[in-house]
Amino acid sequence: MTRPDLGVGMVGYAFMGAAHSHAWRTAPEFFELPMRPRLRALAGRNVDAASATAQRFEWESVTPRWQDLLTRDDVDLIDICTPGDTHAEIAIAALEAGKHVLCEKPLANTVDEAERMAKAAEAAAQASGVRAMVGFTYRRTPAVAYARRLVADGRIGTIRHVRAQYLQDWLSDENAPLTWRLDKNKAGSGALGDIGAHIVDLAQFVSGDRIVRVNGMLETFVETRPVEGVASGIGGVGTTDAERGPVTVDDAVAFLARFDGGAFATFEATRYASGRRNGLRLEINGTEGSLAFDFEDMNVLNFYDATQPSAEQGFRRIIVTQPEHPYLEGWWPPGHGLGYEHGFTHQVVDLVTDLAEGRQPHPSFADGLSVQRVLAAVESSAADGGWKEASG
Amino acid sequence: MTRPDLGVGMVGYAFMGAAHSHAWRTAPEFFELPMRPRLRALAGRNVDAASATAQRFEWESVTPRWQDLLTRDDVDLIDICTPGDTHAEIAIAALEAGKHVLCEKPLANTVDEAERMAKAAEAAAQASGVRAMVGFTYRRTPAVAYARRLVADGRIGTIRHVRAQYLQDWLSDENAPLTWRLDKNKAGSGALGDIGAHIVDLAQFVSGDRIVRVNGMLETFVETRPVEGVASGIGGVGTTDAERGPVTVDDAVAFLARFDGGAFATFEATRYASGRRNGLRLEINGTEGSLAFDFEDMNVLNFYDATQPSAEQGFRRIIVTQPEHPYLEGWWPPGHGLGYEHGFTHQVVDLVTDLAEGRQPHPSFADGLSVQRVLAAVESSAADGGWKEASG
Amino acid sequence: MTRPDLGVGMVGYAFMGAAHSHAWRTAPEFFELPMRPRLRALAGRNVDAASATAQRFEWESVTPRWQDLLTRDDVDLIDICTPGDTHAEIAIAALEAGKHVLCEKPLANTVDEAERMAKAAEAAAQASGVRAMVGFTYRRTPAVAYARRLVADGRIGTIRHVRAQYLQDWLSDENAPLTWRLDKNKAGSGALGDIGAHIVDLAQFVSGDRIVRVNGMLETFVETRPVEGVASGIGGVGTTDAERGPVTVDDAVAFLARFDGGAFATFEATRYASGRRNGLRLEINGTEGSLAFDFEDMNVLNFYDATQPSAEQGFRRIIVTQPEHPYLEGWWPPGHGLGYEHGFTHQVVDLVTDLAEGRQPHPSFADGLSVQRVLAAVESSAADGGWKEASG
Amino acid sequence: MTRPDLGVGMVGYAFMGAAHSHAWRTAPEFFELPMRPRLRALAGRNVDAASATAQRFEWESVTPRWQDLLTRDDVDLIDICTPGDTHAEIAIAALEAGKHVLCEKPLANTVDEAERMAKAAEAAAQASGVRAMVGFTYRRTPAVAYARRLVADGRIGTIRHVRAQYLQDWLSDENAPLTWRLDKNKAGSGALGDIGAHIVDLAQFVSGDRIVRVNGMLETFVETRPVEGVASGIGGVGTTDAERGPVTVDDAVAFLARFDGGAFATFEATRYASGRRNGLRLEINGTEGSLAFDFEDMNVLNFYDATQPSAEQGFRRIIVTQPEHPYLEGWWPPGHGLGYEHGFTHQVVDLVTDLAEGRQPHPSFADGLSVQRVLAAVESSAADGGWKEASG
Repeated sequence: MTRPDLGVGMVGYAFMGAAHSHAWRTAPEFFELPMRPRLRALAGRNVDAASATAQRFEWESVTPRWQDLLTRDDVDLIDICTPGDTHAEIAIAALEAGKHVLCEKPLANTVDEAERMAKAAEAAAQASGVRAMVGFTYRRTPAVAYARRLVADGRIGTIRHVRAQYLQDWLSDENAPLTWRLDKNKAGSGALGDIGAHIVDLAQFVSGDRIVRVNGMLETFVETRPVEGVASGIGGVGTTDAERGPVTVDDAVAFLARFDGGAFATFEATRYASGRRNGLRLEINGTEGSLAFDFEDMNVLNFYDATQPSAEQGFRRIIVTQPEHPYLEGWWPPGHGLGYEHGFTHQVVDLVTDLAEGRQPHPSFADGLSVQRVLAAVESSAADGGWKEASG
Repeated sequence: MTRPDLGVGMVGYAFMGAAHSHAWRTAPEFFELPMRPRLRALAGRNVDAASATAQRFEWESVTPRWQDLLTRDDVDLIDICTPGDTHAEIAIAALEAGKHVLCEKPLANTVDEAERMAKAAEAAAQASGVRAMVGFTYRRTPAVAYARRLVADGRIGTIRHVRAQYLQDWLSDENAPLTWRLDKNKAGSGALGDIGAHIVDLAQFVSGDRIVRVNGMLETFVETRPVEGVASGIGGVGTTDAERGPVTVDDAVAFLARFDGGAFATFEATRYASGRRNGLRLEINGTEGSLAFDFEDMNVLNFYDATQPSAEQGFRRIIVTQPEHPYLEGWWPPGHGLGYEHGFTHQVVDLVTDLAEGRQPHPSFADGLSVQRVLAAVESSAADGGWKEASG
Repeated sequence: MTRPDLGVGMVGYAFMGAAHSHAWRTAPEFFELPMRPRLRALAGRNVDAASATAQRFEWESVTPRWQDLLTRDDVDLIDICTPGDTHAEIAIAALEAGKHVLCEKPLANTVDEAERMAKAAEAAAQASGVRAMVGFTYRRTPAVAYARRLVADGRIGTIRHVRAQYLQDWLSDENAPLTWRLDKNKAGSGALGDIGAHIVDLAQFVSGDRIVRVNGMLETFVETRPVEGVASGIGGVGTTDAERGPVTVDDAVAFLARFDGGAFATFEATRYASGRRNGLRLEINGTEGSLAFDFEDMNVLNFYDATQPSAEQGFRRIIVTQPEHPYLEGWWPPGHGLGYEHGFTHQVVDLVTDLAEGRQPHPSFADGLSVQRVLAAVESSAADGGWKEASG
Repeated sequence: MTRPDLGVGMVGYAFMGAAHSHAWRTAPEFFELPMRPRLRALAGRNVDAASATAQRFEWESVTPRWQDLLTRDDVDLIDICTPGDTHAEIAIAALEAGKHVLCEKPLANTVDEAERMAKAAEAAAQASGVRAMVGFTYRRTPAVAYARRLVADGRIGTIRHVRAQYLQDWLSDENAPLTWRLDKNKAGSGALGDIGAHIVDLAQFVSGDRIVRVNGMLETFVETRPVEGVASGIGGVGTTDAERGPVTVDDAVAFLARFDGGAFATFEATRYASGRRNGLRLEINGTEGSLAFDFEDMNVLNFYDATQPSAEQGFRRIIVTQPEHPYLEGWWPPGHGLGYEHGFTHQVVDLVTDLAEGRQPHPSFADGLSVQRVLAAVESSAADGGWKEASG
C-alpha cells in the first residue's frame, strides 16, 4: 500500500514547536495514518534557533520567512506554533494560499481576529476543501476523550454542575522572570487566554453544551518582574536585582457561568496556586453520575455511577489505558501510562484522518471563536462587575 | 479535686441534639475539664421523641417548653439545637435570663435576627459575664485547627487564593423527600445557609481574614418534592407518587469573593454534586505555601511548603493525629483516626474551658453575624447580578 | 419498654480501658440495645489510676482486686483490658464463676493458654450459657465489615491473593522508650502478637478462609531502649542518656501463607515503617474483583468489580457511611466519617445483642485460638526457616 | 558541531521493538546526544512483520537473519528485543563481533546463560572497549531515579524495610490466551522473570544494597489456556471453546528476602491482581525517612522526611517533573507528565552518553546476572521451602 504524502510547514520552533514536531514524527509510528506526514520546512525569524529545532526533529529545510511556506508545492499544511498576536495574519494567508491550517490555541488575541479567521476558514473550506483546526490538545488526552464519550452516552444524565480549574504556580515567586506570556501585545491576556482558554474549551467539549453567560473577575498580583528570556515562556528562576518590566496581563481569573443545557458552573485559572504544577481539573456532576479529571494524574478518569446500588457507589478510578479507550489501540499494554505530548500525537492522528476523508476536523476555527467570545465576555464582565452574554 | 458542675439544658433532640448530647458526655471522658457538665434537662415540643433522646443520653429530665429551662437554677447554659427560625427568640431569652448560650449554626435566618442576637450577647457579657457561642464545629476538626495554626505562624506567607467548596449530593435524586431544610420559613435558605455558612466561616477562620465583597448566583434545580418527614432533615428515599410540596430554598450557590487581606476567592455549595457525600474542601494558596483539606478524608491536612528546595517540594499528607496536633492530647495513638462527632466534643472542651476562665469563646455571636452578612450579600448579589459589600 | 440491665465489670484502665469504657457508654446512645449496660466496677492494681479512669467514665465502683468482680451479683460480664500475660487466669476464673467474658486480643501469650481458654469457654457455654468473645475490633470497622459482606456475596469470586500489612512507625526512633509491649513476659511477642494478630484475624474474617501453612521471619532491629513508662504502651519520646533495658520481642515480622481456599498470601507487620502511623492494609484479589482497605483512610473501601465492561473498570472509592452499610444506621448522614473508637462501640452492640439472643458472639475464643496457632507457627517457622502447618 | 553517527541494528520488532525504535528516534529530539543514532537495520524472522515495523519507524533496511547485522560496518550496536531464550546466542555473537549490545531484560532464561553473557561482556570490554547493557528501563523513570538519588544522599538513613510488588491482572481471566510469555521454553519463567525481575533490579538499584538470601513460593493458578497469538504477549481476550495448551510457567511469586545492608524485605509479583494494571510498587522505610512509588502514578514519588518536626511530618507527593529532577531538563514544563516509553528514551540517552565517554553503562550484564541469581534462588527456594543464598 502506498500512502500519499502530507507536506507540513511549521511556523515557530520553541515549546509548541517541539511538541508539534515530535507529534508529526510519532503519529505514523503508532497509528495507521492514511497519509504520511513529511516535515518539509520550518519557518522562524531566529534562523539559528529554528535550525537547531529543525536538526533535532529532521525538518528538511529552514526559512526565516513564514511566507515562503505558502508558495511551496510540497507543503500541504501550515502548522502555526507562534504567539497569539501572529495567528490571524499567518492563518488567513495560508488558507487563502490553499493550505490546510493547524493553529495553536488560543485562536487569536481578540474576538475580531478570531472572527476573521473563522470566516476565512469557512470560505476556504467551501472554495477548495481546505481545512482549519485549532490546537486544544487536552481534548485528546484519553481520559478526557473518554469522559466526553461517557457524557455523550448519557451515563451521567442531565448535567447540574461544571467545576473547572486550571491551577499552576510558576508565577508565585514574585521574581520569576517576565516572559512573552506576560506581555499583552504578544499573548493577548494572561491566565485567561493561556490556560483559562483550555478549561473553557474542555468544559464545552466534555459537556457538549455551550457557555451562555459569565460573570468574572481578574487579578494581577505582581505588577513588575525581572526582564529575562525563557524559551518556553513558562518557568525559570529570576533574580532580585535584575531590571524589571511591567506585567500587562492578568495573573488569575475566576468566573461564574451558565451553560445552555442548564448547568451551573465555576471556572478558575491561575499561575499562583503554590504546589499545583499543572492542575487542570474538570468535575461534572449530573443526575445519573459524575466525572472528575485532574491533569496531574492524567491517565485517570474518576467516574461515579449513581445508578448502582447505594452501598456500592463510589468514584471509580479508571486507568484510561485499556485498548477500548480512545487512542489506546496504538499504544502500550494496560497500565503503561501516556504523557503530556501524546495529546499532540493524537491531534495529528485525528487531523490527518479527517483530511484524508474530507471531513472538518475539530475543534474548528468556529469552535476556537466560541472560546474567544467567552474569554472576551469574562474580560468585559470583570471590567464592570456584571453578567455578560458569552455567545455571539 | 472537686470540680464545679455546669448544668446544661438543651432545646432540640434530633440530628444536632444527638451530636451535642454525645459531646457533653464524652468531653469529660477524654479531657480534663474545669467543670463537670451535667445534663439537666432536654426541651422538645414532641415529648415522646424528646424523651427517647433523653433516655439514650441520660438527660435527667424532659420538658415540652424550652422556657422552663430559663428558670431552673441548676441550668447554667442553654444549648440550642433547633432549626434556625427559633434561634433568635430562644437565645435572646436565655441570655436575658443570665444563661450562657451555645447556638447551632447558622446563627439565624436573617441578618436582622443575627444583629439582635449579637447585641444581646454583648449586653449579657457586659452585664453579667454570660457568654454566647455559635456552633461552627468544623473549626474544631484537628486538621482544620492545625491549618489555622500554620497560617497564623506565617507558614504559607501572604494568601493569594482561597478556594472553598461544600459538595453534598443528597438532593440529586429529584424524588428525595421535602424536609424542613428545604422550607425557607424554617431554614432561612438552602445550601447557602446550611453548608455555605460553614465554608464562609472556615475560610475566614483559617485565613484570619474577612470577606469584603461578593458576587454570586443561586439555583433551585428541583422545584417540588415528595412531602415526607426525615428526622435529620438530610437524606431519605422518596417515592414518585407521593404528594409533592414546593422547595422554597436554593439547591446550590456559588460566588466570587475578595478578602480584606487581598485574597482572590471562589466559593461553591451544593447538594447536587453526585458522589460527593460531604465534600467540604478548603484550599488556600499563599506566597510561601499552600494548604488543602477535604472533610471526606478528615484526619488529613495537605501542606505544601514552597520554601523547601524545588526538587523536594510536594503536598505533604499530614495525618493529623500526633499528640502535638490540636485536641489530640486527649485521644488515641497516632493514625487512630477521629470522626465527625469529635468536633462537637472539642467544642464542649473549648467552651467549658473558656467559661471557667471567664473568656469569650469563639466563634462568638459577632462572628456568626459576620457570616450572616456574607450570606445576605450573596443573596442580594444573586438577585441583581453585581458585587456587594459583605461587611456591615 | 423496660430493658434488663447488663452489669459490667472491667479489669484494666489504660489505653484499652478507656476505649472499652467509652464504648459501653456510647453504644446505647446510638443503637437500640436489648440490654442496658451498667458500669458496675473497675478493677486495677493501681487504685489511684483506676479511680481516675473510673471517675472519667462514671464507673460505679473501683477495686484493686479483679477477683472481687467474680462474686458480685450485679456483674454479669467481665471485660478484660490488661496485658496478655493475665488473660488466661482472669478469663478462666470469670467463666467458671458464670460470668460472660470479653477479652482483649491477643487471646493469650501462648497457644497453651489459648487452648485452655477456648476449652473453658466451650465448657461454660454448654454448662450455663455463658459466652466468651475476643476483641478483634477492626472487624467492626464498617469498611471491613462491608468487605466481608461483599466476599460472602461472591462479589470478588474465587480468592487468588491476600496481601495484608500492618505498618506502624512508633519504634523507628531508636530512643523511643521501652514499654510493656516490648517485654516478652507481658506481651508474649512484639509486632507479631500486637498487630500481626490483627491482620491474621482480619484476613481470615474477610476471606472466610483459614490460613493452613506459613513460612516467616522475625527481626529485632533495636535491642535496648530507654526504660520509661508510657501508659498506652505506644509512642512516647525517649532520651539518649536514660538507662536502657533489653527489648525481648520482635520489631517486625513477615510471612508467606497459604489459605485452605487456595489463596496465595503475604503478611507483614512492623513498628519501623517510617511515616506509616497505623497502616493496617488488606487487599484481596479474586477472579471477579478485588478489595483494598487501609486504616489510615478508615471510612473507605476500594472495590474493583471485574464483571463490568473493561473500559469502565476501576477501583471504586466507596465511602462506607451510607445507611445501608454495616453499623451505619446508628450514626450520621453520609460522608460524616467515623473514627477509631467506633469499632469498640460496635463490638458492644454486637456482643449485647448476641447475649440477649443467646447466640455465640464472634470472634469466639476458638477464633482467637486459631489466630494464636498461626502466630505460633510463624514463630516456629522463623526459628528454623521452613514451612509450618498453622492449624491444630 | 558535527556529531559522529551511532549505527544501530535491532533484533525483534514487536512490543519491545516498537518501544526501542521510538526511543532511538526520540532521544536526539529532546537531548543533546554526543552521537546521532542511525536506524540502520532491523532483523526479524517474519520479514513481513519486521518490514511493517521498519516502515513505521523508518529503519533503513530489513533482514530475516540477525547474523547479517554482525558483519555490517555501519552497525555499531546491536539492540536485542527478542524473547529471553535467544538473548545469550545473539548477545555473545554480537560482542565477539565487536558490537556494543543493549539487551532486553531478563538478561537470560538461566543463570548459566547469564554467566556466559556476563563473561563475554567483560572480555569484550577489556579486549576492544565494546560495551553491554541490560534493559531494566524502570530505573530511568524520573521518580525512580530521583528515589535513588535521595537514598544515595542519605535522606532516609539506614534502610529497615523494602517492600516491592509488581501487580498486574491480565491473566486473571482464565480464558485469557496462551502467549509466548506463558511458555517456559521461550520465557524461562512467568511472573518471576518477566515482572519479578524488574522489582528485584529496582529494589537493589534504589537501595544500593544487594539481596543475599531469599525464601519464596510460586503458583500456577490456571494450567491450560486458549492457544492464540498476541503480539505483545500481554493481554488479549480468549474464547472458551478454543483449543487449550499448557501454561508452563508461574502465575505468581512471593518471597521474603534479606539485603546485605540489613534490610528486611518482601517481594511479590503476579498477573492475577484484579484491577491492578501495572502496579509496580516500591516502598522503602529507613531510620530517617521513607520513599513510596507506584508505576500506576508514575510521575509521582512519595517522600517522608522523619527529620522534620512531628506535627509537620507526612508523605510528600512530589510530582517529579521539575527541571532539577533526573532527565527532566529535556522535557516539558512542571506538571506536564511523562509516560511509559520515556524510560526507553532515557535509556538511549544514558547509553549513548556512556559509549561516547568510554564508560561502562548500567545496568551492566553483571548487574543482570545478579538479578538472575536472585530469581534462580527464589525458584530453588520454592522447590524445597527453605532459605537460599542469592549471590554467587
